[in-house]
Order: sequence, then structure tokens, then C-alpha cells
Amino acid sequence: MVQSTNNSSVSRRDLLKAAAASGGALAAGSISVSAAAESNKENLPPNVADWSTSLGEGVDTNPYGKPSEFEKDVVRRSVRWLTASTESSVNFTPLHELDGIITPNGLCFERHHSGVAEVNPTDHRLMINGLVEKPLIFTMEDIMRFPRTNKIFFLECAANSGMEWRGAQLNGCQFTQGMIHCVQYTGVRLKYILEEAGLKTNAKWLMPEGGDSAGMNRSVPLAKALDDCLLAFKMNGEALRPEQGYPLRLVVPGWEGNMWVKWLRRIEVGDMPWHTREETSKYTDLMENGKSRRFTWVMDCKSVITNPSPQAPINHGKGHTVLTGLAWSGQGTVDRVDITLDGGKNWHAARIDGPRLPKALHRFYYEFDWDGSPLLLQSRAVDSTGYVQPTKDELRTVRGTNSIYHNNGIQTWHVLKNGEVENVEIS
Amino acid sequence: MVQSTNNSSVSRRDLLKAAAASGGALAAGSISVSAAAESNKENLPPNVADWSTSLGEGVDTNPYGKPSEFEKDVVRRSVRWLTASTESSVNFTPLHELDGIITPNGLCFERHHSGVAEVNPTDHRLMINGLVEKPLIFTMEDIMRFPRTNKIFFLECAANSGMEWRGAQLNGCQFTQGMIHCVQYTGVRLKYILEEAGLKTNAKWLMPEGGDSAGMNRSVPLAKALDDCLLAFKMNGEALRPEQGYPLRLVVPGWEGNMWVKWLRRIEVGDMPWHTREETSKYTDLMENGKSRRFTWVMDCKSVITNPSPQAPINHGKGHTVLTGLAWSGQGTVDRVDITLDGGKNWHAARIDGPRLPKALHRFYYEFDWDGSPLLLQSRAVDSTGYVQPTKDELRTVRGTNSIYHNNGIQTWHVLKNGEVENVEIS
Repeated sequence: MVQSTNNSSVSRRDLLKAAAASGGALAAGSISVSAAAESNKENLPPNVADWSTSLGEGVDTNPYGKPSEFEKDVVRRSVRWLTASTESSVNFTPLHELDGIITPNGLCFERHHSGVAEVNPTDHRLMINGLVEKPLIFTMEDIMRFPRTNKIFFLECAANSGMEWRGAQLNGCQFTQGMIHCVQYTGVRLKYILEEAGLKTNAKWLMPEGGDSAGMNRSVPLAKALDDCLLAFKMNGEALRPEQGYPLRLVVPGWEGNMWVKWLRRIEVGDMPWHTREETSKYTDLMENGKSRRFTWVMDCKSVITNPSPQAPINHGKGHTVLTGLAWSGQGTVDRVDITLDGGKNWHAARIDGPRLPKALHRFYYEFDWDGSPLLLQSRAVDSTGYVQPTKDELRTVRGTNSIYHNNGIQTWHVLKNGEVENVEIS
Repeated sequence: MVQSTNNSSVSRRDLLKAAAASGGALAAGSISVSAAAESNKENLPPNVADWSTSLGEGVDTNPYGKPSEFEKDVVRRSVRWLTASTESSVNFTPLHELDGIITPNGLCFERHHSGVAEVNPTDHRLMINGLVEKPLIFTMEDIMRFPRTNKIFFLECAANSGMEWRGAQLNGCQFTQGMIHCVQYTGVRLKYILEEAGLKTNAKWLMPEGGDSAGMNRSVPLAKALDDCLLAFKMNGEALRPEQGYPLRLVVPGWEGNMWVKWLRRIEVGDMPWHTREETSKYTDLMENGKSRRFTWVMDCKSVITNPSPQAPINHGKGHTVLTGLAWSGQGTVDRVDITLDGGKNWHAARIDGPRLPKALHRFYYEFDWDGSPLLLQSRAVDSTGYVQPTKDELRTVRGTNSIYHNNGIQTWHVLKNGEVENVEIS
């Protein structure tokens, strides 16, 4: 039976000793691991666990469930010095604690410009105005009467990894790549709503506007809106979370998260871009020559190793090690991910596992035997257009270091002999 | 702009009046809806909503997020008279509130036999014993060192719809079909763990055993274990929830949920089935002749209309109506779903939208114009083996009405003139 909770530290030591002594648990073949599994049943403590001898809580305890108390450190985290206030800040997804491609709703990164708007869905309206035949106002119930679709998409903030432009700064992929999540959205194609209003022939651009007090707005080209944009009201099956724009958000697949306007209250149709604050002083990439790249909407192909990583060191010592991470591209699917353990001298194909959906996260794995020596880990993704994820230095050569946005450079983790991991740069 | 929260009832009435008067919002074409959208901007109230004029909560408020207060009724529900105690009971998924194919972790139905075991993952062990070359004991960390895989699967209790064998009884798909959920699991193939222990040549059956005080156990044929069973430790990206077997559960794709042993502490390998309590006095189907069907593991093809349904009436009156629901098969994918509005006289192909993954939920839609007359709604699914979901009467003809389990019969909803919906039977 399982071990007792009363003397777990002693019995774990016994197990490890037994495993080391027997060696018999180390099986052959590609799937074997040098685990602490052991074959000596006599080492088992006589007690059984408390949870095997007592009644647990009943089904009336949690109408809406929550994680185990033992997972209390699996949370979003913010960086206090990053912004002036918590209402205009970021809460990062703990990528190092997750697996698969779905981000649970409670851990989806959040970024606001005036805090979380708490919208009453009964009173919420969406207005379509501007270059349309019939300006329209929709209730949430109206919107839900259009044909719905379900799509799994990643959402990445343009500023994800932005703090890394000037060198390795933050110790943990939660902070360096954690402005991303991936859920299944349910919504209505924006195309249907626009067709209901009737587009005038000179309509070329949209300006979605948020219902928060920041009134977040961006210019979106009409072609994108008609292609694959959604008005989403559900994520992972249930209603959008307040911090994700409840009750209605714009979904702009593959494009920077700032355009996915939350608490969506209005879409104006126009014939040219508006050049709002959020696409001039912000969300443009300042180059070395003082000019800015504008309309850099697509999130280019990128990847990161989530384990091992600074917040998730190797605790088991030498031997079989599961390396895992995430890859994505705003242009489509990810065709391959390569891994290096030695800072780029040798590359190995990672195994992509799970659905490979366009503009969604892809999960990759690379299993290897660690000999206990230091490692320089990198992942490099290639997308379905043939685009290869660049190094940070390659990006800097082209764009300089003034920018905050669109850093999709290769991340390097330095694994030390003791299994700890640091964020480093190599050239 | 959006309406004020201060006078929403008045302004909604205005909007509806305006829509009725103008009629101009009812566009043509297949995607149009007879919505309350309207073209008269003068009817808008002068105020803007509170949430558009004040700061919301900052990112330090919810390290682990939660649903909007306006969604507080979207919860799992239990039926008190169904079982003797809450520790041995069921909490049903609110299917009528969900969309897409992913069930959020907080709303996954739960069923226990001695309450929710609160397991400390550090102290948890999995033992493999019986007809193996090397009995082994694994820590959670050991298990996570095997190659992982990610799969989206439904889990359905064998007793789902069990209360309907003797006629329509419960008003709501949460209660009639809500013993089901669908998440992305991350885990290790059971095959790898068994290979590590080394199967003896006479090994033919497994008995997984739970770490709860019920010590839940079932006989699983080895062929299934080697085919697609997983030892799962994550669901929808994060750790399993306690009520779903944290930290480790067996995943038996397409087979009845009772076999997906939670809080998994031991797997015994044997040469014949054990005939435990849970596969003799329970989870066998008592026939009219007094004999029981045994080993009825597969969950056959089934579907249900989730909206409209008794808990989700039609509130918008006549006109464009979105009908949606779920279909699934333990044998593979769902090839088609047909819908009848008139109790089976005429059938119409539903649109299946979203990923079509084997042994996962499928989401279907059927949009129609409701003329306000009573309807008898049914959905009928056909899976990739050609199996057609039967009527309840067809099932009763073969199996009688003594059984509790494996009722995959067609569900009928009676829509009344006022939009309310009842659970009925027709023959």
C-alpha cells in the first residue's frame, strides 16, 4: 500500500536507498527511466495514509471546484516594478507548472489598462456604427442567436519577452514568456455581425472599443475581421472570465493580444486606420534610427522550454529527464521544434504531442539522460510557412534594443550541476 | 455607447420597441437573425455604464482567477434523494450552461464512494504488483519522468441517464445527462509503466485500486491497458482536481467512468478478473430474466440537446433559434448528428463544429426559425462504426427496465408555446 503520511521523510529515504541498492528497477528500452521505483516490498511502512482510512468531503462542498491545497503555489504572478499601478499591469501564466496545450481559465495571464471591468451582461451592449448601412446595437442574447463556432487559439501579448531585449533579466519562464494562454473559444464570426449591419463599399478598417474605463481601442483591417475574427463569449466551455473581457471579447487569431479588445462595447467601421494611442505611442516597435515599425500585428513563430527552467529546476539528479515546452506561430501550425543541450552545437528533434492546430499552442517533449554536467538549453521552432525562430541577437541586429514588443528570440536556460536553472544569454 | 446600468429596464424596453418598429435590423441571408438589434441611435440613454467610468480591480486581486459574480448559478448540482450520503454521491455538470467541447475543471461532474480523498502528492505512491517480473513502487516524480502524452477524452459515468430507464423523471440535462465531462489529460501511457515492471506471460488482467477509503477497484483487461490507457496527472493543463483523483488517476478512454480509478495507489496484475463489488453487485446491467450483463465497459454512442432544455428555455420568443448539444462515442468519433423538431417525423442534419477527436465530446448546432408552436426535440448521433443511437424504447425492448446503467437512448424535450421545456417520453 501507499506510505504513511506520518513518517514520509524516513520512508522516502528508505525507498531511495533500496532503489540504489537493487538497481533492478532500471529497465531497458526507450521508455525506461532511472526512477526511484524499487522492488523491495519489505521497506514499506506498515501504516496506510490518512486519506485511505477516513471519509472525504461530500459533493455538496464545492459547487464550483478548486485546485488542491497542495497546488496553492500554482498561481499567476505580477512584477511590481514593471508598471505604475496594479490596475495597469500584467499577471503572468505559470507556464512551468502546466502541461498540454489548454490553459485553465484560472491561470490565464491577464493585462489591463484600468483594471478588471465588472460588466453586467444583462446591461451590456455592442454597437456597430460608422460605414455601415444600418448602425446596430446588440444585446448578449442577440449575439448568441448567430451561428457559433469553437476554436482553440493562443493569445500572446506583443510585449511578451519584452524585458529580454536588453539581455537576460528575469528568472523564470512565467515572467519571460508567461504573457500567453491558449483556450477553446466559443463565439460568433465577426463577419456575420458585420454582414447584419451591411458594410458600405468604402469600409476598410474597424475600430473595436472596450467597455472598461480605458476604452481600449485599436485599428483592425477589415480583411482580417472577415477572415477569422470572432466575438467570443465562452472560454474552455464556460463564460469568459472578467479579466478576459466578460461578457464579450474580440478574438483576433495569431495577432497581438492588445487587439483582442475585452468588454467589447463598440465596433466602428471606417476607411482608414485611427492611429489610436495604443498603436502609436504604444504597440509600435521603436528602431535604432528613431523610426517605428507600425502594424506589426502577427505574433511570429516562437517557443520556450518550460521544464527545466529557473522556477522548475531538475530535482532528481542525473538520469532520465523529461524536457518539455511550448511552441506557437501566428501564421499557422508549428512544423518542428529542435532542442539543443549545449548552446547550439548539436540540435535534436523534439516530439510534438497533442493536437496541432493553427494559431494554437503546441506542446513538445524531448527526453534525455542527464549526466549531471551543466547544460545550455534552447528550443527553436519552425512554422508551417518555413519561418525559423531567430536568436535574440539576430533580432537585435535588425531591430536594435529600443523596442519592447515582438521579441520572439530563442531563450537560453543554463542548467547548473546541482540542477538549478538560470536565465542567460550566449552569443 | 453602451447603456447605463441605472435605467436598464427602461432602456431595454425602448430598444425592443425600436427594433419592432423599425424592422430594419432583420437582414437577409442564411446568417441573419431576427434579433432585437436596432438602428435608432436616438433611443440610447445618455449615461455610460459604471464600469466604463471607474477603475476595476488590479492584477494582485486574484492569483487564481474565478468566474464573474453574474455566473454564480453556473455550478455543479447534486440530487439529495439519489444517494444515502453526500460522500457517496454525484455532482452533475451544468451542460446547459456550457459550449464547445472542453469542460472547465471547476464544473466537471464528480462521483465518489467515500468522499474526496485529499492526497498529499509528496507522500503518494503507486505500486505495481502481481504477475510482474519486478514489483515496483513509484513516486509522483518517478511517473513524471516517463514520456508524456496529451489527449482530449470524455469521461461518462455508466449510470448517466440511469434514472430515465423507467420514464422521464428529471427536468434538466444537467441531471439526465450531466454525469459527463471532457478535458485534455496529460499523462503517461500505462503500457510504459507495465513494461518497466515486466509482465509475466500469464498476465491478462489488471486491478487498479484507489487510495480513497472506498479502495475503489475494478478489473481491466490487459489489452485495453496496453492500447490507450493513461496514468494522468494533469487535466486542462493544471494538476488534476482533488475530486478527479489528484494526484493520479487512471484514464480508460471510451469506457465507463467507474473504471477510471482515482487517487490511484496500486495496480495488481493477474490472470483472471477479480469480480469485485463494483463489477458484480454494481456496474452490471440486470436484465428481465434475472441475469446480468457483465463487462459492459464501452460507453455507446449518445447525444443530448443542451439548449433549449428544461433549465434553458427559449426566452426570446419566435424567430431565429440556436439549438446546440453534445454527442460522443466510446468507439471513436461521431460521424453525424440528426435533429428532429417534431418527435421524429422529419430529421435534419446538425452541424458539428470544433475538433472531431476520438472518444471526445463533439459539439453540434442546428439553427432554425421557431414559429412559436410546441416542439418535440430529439438528437440522434451516429458514430464512426456506423452505430446509430437507439430510442429508449428500443433499449427497453432488449434490456428491460431493471437496469441502472448504459442508457444511451434518445432524449426528448417538449418545448411549450411560452418557450419552457419539459422532459417527456414519446412512443
